[in-house]
Amino acid sequence: MISKNQIKLITSLKQKKYRLEHKLFVVEGIKTIKELLKSDLILDALYTTETFNIDAKDEVLIKETDLKRISFLTTPNKALAVFKIPNAKPIHNNELIVALDDIRDPGNLGTIIRLCDWFGIKDLVCSKATVDCFNPKVIQATMGSITRVNISYVNLVDYLKTTSLPVFGAFMEGENVYTKQMPKKGILVMGNEANGVSKTVEGLVSNKISIPRFGDLQETESLNVATATAILLSEFKRG
Amino acid sequence: MISKNQIKLITSLKQKKYRLEHKLFVVEGIKTIKELLKSDLILDALYTTETFNIDAKDEVLIKETDLKRISFLTTPNKALAVFKIPNAKPIHNNELIVALDDIRDPGNLGTIIRLCDWFGIKDLVCSKATVDCFNPKVIQATMGSITRVNISYVNLVDYLKTTSLPVFGAFMEGENVYTKQMPKKGILVMGNEANGVSKTVEGLVSNKISIPRFGDLQETESLNVATATAILLSEFKRG
Repeated sequence: MISKNQIKLITSLKQKKYRLEHKLFVVEGIKTIKELLKSDLILDALYTTETFNIDAKDEVLIKETDLKRISFLTTPNKALAVFKIPNAKPIHNNELIVALDDIRDPGNLGTIIRLCDWFGIKDLVCSKATVDCFNPKVIQATMGSITRVNISYVNLVDYLKTTSLPVFGAFMEGENVYTKQMPKKGILVMGNEANGVSKTVEGLVSNKISIPRFGDLQETESLNVATATAILLSEFKRG
Repeated sequence: MISKNQIKLITSLKQKKYRLEHKLFVVEGIKTIKELLKSDLILDALYTTETFNIDAKDEVLIKETDLKRISFLTTPNKALAVFKIPNAKPIHNNELIVALDDIRDPGNLGTIIRLCDWFGIKDLVCSKATVDCFNPKVIQATMGSITRVNISYVNLVDYLKTTSLPVFGAFMEGENVYTKQMPKKGILVMGNEANGVSKTVEGLVSNKISIPRFGDLQETESLNVATATAILLSEFKRG
């Protein structure tokens, strides 16, 4: 059984302001929920149409019709969990860090979190205007990686002003990344989907880099920010 | 004005079978339509709420309410064009070619088409079960790149059996791509999102390659196929 108040709470968590107010976020799908249960995230409630066979005192078996009422998906996937939003941990300042300057697309942020996880990036630093990482579409796209990357929302300009790490940024007119030896430590700044890196952040970038375009026609506008992040992280890490 | 029959035809083009029957596909949004008008694609009809100021005899000014009736988008973007599906050109067999083994997600295919365009890949060869490249969601994700990449749907096993090019494939257990010198010519096979490269295609892959994982925890399941394609194409092209 699920009460009206619980339904109201869960559906409110679609919106960032209620996630911040309640310090809770929603995860759907058995596979992702199981992955998050293995992490140090704290479970608040678990609604499922079939038991997880886990020692979760908070597991509530519900009917499919009830799951449909609380799910954010068109096709609900057997289970929905509510977890507590963890506090961000301090940022490691002697590693390779990815910084995002106003990434707006949840799918892009989700893909970038997954890439950070793959490439062993411990810290992802986001400008305040970057899409919230506890947005359900981001969570869906991260496939559990969100538990393994420390994500901090900061004033990006202030953060970059105080760092002693070299600051790299992706720019169309930057230096060919294939001709440079990338360092082990530094900050890689990736810009907004439509506008790239903002002017104020650009002033704090010490190394502008770019991925050269190989097509003859030179008409391809730009790479998607998530695929560009993939290629640049690969360049930092390949050695 | 737009007739009932035209509305019926356009909305039918959401489905692959009607696209194949009529040899037509739909493109939405002024920016992408303008890019496609510059290509050698043949325009069949152009419906717009404001004039393109182009010499398109087929331009029809319609009301926003009519655009809503024919659009596949939740928020229609001022214009919808119908283009003729071009015939695939012969595949260049002395270049770097990307081959897709049953990619199902339209966003992934769209991103891969855009990557091919960026990296100067002329030919994208798709298995018959790969999502149709004229699917509206693919077209939306390609940002016009679809006009610059020759996409062929083939029996992938037959195609790979007859090629004289070296066949590379992305496998979790493949050789570390960073330690190999990649050739200028060859075929790069990328597998299905859930199942990877199929067994029959695997038998035709001469070089299994992989992108090493750098995270400590070794729990990240895999890279998304589009981001993996980005990194591997970068490795082929960086020289």
